[in-house]
Amino acid sequence: MTLKQSAPININVAAQLTNVKNKIPLVHCITNRVTITECANGLLAAGAAPIMSEDAREVEEIVSISNALVLNIGTLMPLQIESMLIAGVKAKRIGIPVIFDPVGAGATRLRDDVSKQIIETVRPDVIRGNISEIRALYGFAGNTKGVDAAATDNVTLENAEETAFIVSELAKKYECIVGATGEIDIISDGKNTCYVGNGHPALCKITGSGCVLSSLAGAYVGAAKKTSEERMNAVIGAFVLSGLAGEYAEAETKKEGGGMGTFHTKYMDALSLIDADDFIQKAKIYVSETSSDKHTDL
Amino acid sequence: MTLKQSAPININVAAQLTNVKNKIPLVHCITNRVTITECANGLLAAGAAPIMSEDAREVEEIVSISNALVLNIGTLMPLQIESMLIAGVKAKRIGIPVIFDPVGAGATRLRDDVSKQIIETVRPDVIRGNISEIRALYGFAGNTKGVDAAATDNVTLENAEETAFIVSELAKKYECIVGATGEIDIISDGKNTCYVGNGHPALCKITGSGCVLSSLAGAYVGAAKKTSEERMNAVIGAFVLSGLAGEYAEAETKKEGGGMGTFHTKYMDALSLIDADDFIQKAKIYVSETSSDKHTDL
Amino acid sequence: MTLKQSAPININVAAQLTNVKNKIPLVHCITNRVTITECANGLLAAGAAPIMSEDAREVEEIVSISNALVLNIGTLMPLQIESMLIAGVKAKRIGIPVIFDPVGAGATRLRDDVSKQIIETVRPDVIRGNISEIRALYGFAGNTKGVDAAATDNVTLENAEETAFIVSELAKKYECIVGATGEIDIISDGKNTCYVGNGHPALCKITGSGCVLSSLAGAYVGAAKKTSEERMNAVIGAFVLSGLAGEYAEAETKKEGGGMGTFHTKYMDALSLIDADDFIQKAKIYVSETSSDKHTDL
Repeated sequence: MTLKQSAPININVAAQLTNVKNKIPLVHCITNRVTITECANGLLAAGAAPIMSEDAREVEEIVSISNALVLNIGTLMPLQIESMLIAGVKAKRIGIPVIFDPVGAGATRLRDDVSKQIIETVRPDVIRGNISEIRALYGFAGNTKGVDAAATDNVTLENAEETAFIVSELAKKYECIVGATGEIDIISDGKNTCYVGNGHPALCKITGSGCVLSSLAGAYVGAAKKTSEERMNAVIGAFVLSGLAGEYAEAETKKEGGGMGTFHTKYMDALSLIDADDFIQKAKIYVSETSSDKHTDL
Repeated sequence: MTLKQSAPININVAAQLTNVKNKIPLVHCITNRVTITECANGLLAAGAAPIMSEDAREVEEIVSISNALVLNIGTLMPLQIESMLIAGVKAKRIGIPVIFDPVGAGATRLRDDVSKQIIETVRPDVIRGNISEIRALYGFAGNTKGVDAAATDNVTLENAEETAFIVSELAKKYECIVGATGEIDIISDGKNTCYVGNGHPALCKITGSGCVLSSLAGAYVGAAKKTSEERMNAVIGAFVLSGLAGEYAEAETKKEGGGMGTFHTKYMDALSLIDADDFIQKAKIYVSETSSDKHTDL
Repeated sequence: MTLKQSAPININVAAQLTNVKNKIPLVHCITNRVTITECANGLLAAGAAPIMSEDAREVEEIVSISNALVLNIGTLMPLQIESMLIAGVKAKRIGIPVIFDPVGAGATRLRDDVSKQIIETVRPDVIRGNISEIRALYGFAGNTKGVDAAATDNVTLENAEETAFIVSELAKKYECIVGATGEIDIISDGKNTCYVGNGHPALCKITGSGCVLSSLAGAYVGAAKKTSEERMNAVIGAFVLSGLAGEYAEAETKKEGGGMGTFHTKYMDALSLIDADDFIQKAKIYVSETSSDKHTDL
């Protein structure tokens, strides 16, 4: 079984970028203190509009005027958890898509407990994490196959399909789209699974690239039609944008002989400069030749 | 009735920049989590000194050593509101100017309530918001003419004088200076109204440019003499600096073919590089030929 | 008595940089809201890994997987103080080095009280502040000689040894390493005292350069062997890296005709680009010819 690039999907995913630029979705983020500025600037650069609010007395009103809600548990505090639950439940009640970023799931009991509580109470539409976090969620989801803690977290084009099993199972279990970042990214809704090969390791050397990606997923899904196919394309679009931004930033930084400060500036540049043509020409989106069969067979 | 530029005012406003660079005013900000770093860096770049503190047990002491207090409700939390009130009341008692930035006023009940509470309890010396926020404050201030929610929020040189009515009325009602940002900015103390034409739309594509402007207003008023004329010039100075920084950043970014990351870097560059000569030569400050008559006639 | 540069120490300190790059220490920061992003990016750029967490329910677990704990009181809030104490006590119990940054000590009663509480309860391994903060800590430490509030805080190569007395006494009193930043930096463990002449005044014009330095001290000590000599070299290494980054940023900014935005970008570039060779060639580390005698005589 091999992964193949498909030209038509690039065009469909590129349409999502155009969608965001046209609709300027308002994305309500209840997010962590480290990367909150990054998320706001990332959303603005990509053509969306951010609104950060976490006071329990107003989050329902903010959700009501937003196109998506992003919950990120990177720096939990007691009051914040309550606000996430209130906002999340409200969003689902009125049909606003919810993106959940389980930052640090697996690292502490609190993060595991809160992740579980958010997933089960809110039922997010998209879960976006790194592969370790996704493994952790899969583990505590009660899957008896467990999680191989010793397994390498380095997902490559060669071993992506094996890891995709976990991503796909988690998506099935919670009836949502799950997106996991790694050397190759894996996105699955439990029926179909896609892989995104764009990106650069330097993205892990600036804080917030993962949180920004989750916020972008909010913007892309918030601007998309409410079909499962369009939402998959939207999530893929956010991953492609983030990955291409990393590639652009690395190339520009090298050209200038810069370091991580320059990389950061160029990354933000890229989020605003990348357009639909870049998606069509440079997106590396792969599908299993028999991916949908494979996953419905499980 | 037409708006006219006046050369002498540029010189008076330029003197405010020199003032800030010489006095290095200490600006105490109780501000939002998204742009707190921006506000600190903006103040430092412009020649002022920031101090961020919001623990109720120390805000009075911090106010006592500061030259201005800036209250910004961008990301409210219960404890923060209490600290703003304590700090604000203390500042007024000892004669420290207070700048209030009603971020998101009009968007939620909480923000309206807190704005009202701060304005009525603290009586800020300056209110700085975008035109939508200023309209919202004007609306709940009980003016029976109400706020035309359908009115475009795009204030241009052509329609500025109509919107100026709201700004001026709000200033009269609360005996303070009100500054509203838009394509053209409007600043009024209820008697005199000025317009600033500097700026660039890209300022709205980085988070914090409005919050930084409010912080700069703190620095400028904090360094100014306590006359109403000097304080008007100081607020105008902060608007001019912010506007010129946007123009500089846009020009430099275009030159380099950059995106929003580069714009952000150049904007911070500009806040530190712009000097009194730039003010004298490039500030676009307009006054109504009969502005003071107009407003006292109301 | 004069200060002299010593070549061998540069090599030993350079080895600390290599150490950090090889070990990628995980640094747990409970830090302030203004510079939290800076600290995360600074640590990443320098080759370490940041983790920010301040919920009392998880800080002990986070400490347990970390190589160092950094406590910074720049923007205190009630819940944060409790978390700092819990995390600090845990870190000391399991042998994780604790770095304390007493931001604003001397400015308010709250900061003095909390500093005292943290120092006496946690017993940090390193205290890193500017010379005013270190003077304040020395003052309330009950030293009857008091602190000359009128004394200039401008420490130069000429008067460094006098100020070093305070730094060294504080280190002795709390059996820790104390590092004070100024035009010349002073680092002492109460027995030996070193001086670092690298740096540039522009570092004070971006927010967070001091907080980043404290975080870097966490990374360097966290990666070092647990001997007092290695820990001194590690702290010196963090100061040298910060100072060289300031020098590099200033030179690059001048070359480009930039302002504080460019300086900030270049500073982050430098934190990632500076290598062991730069340390060996450019570090300005001074020792008193008779420094250890002097201090054991006190």
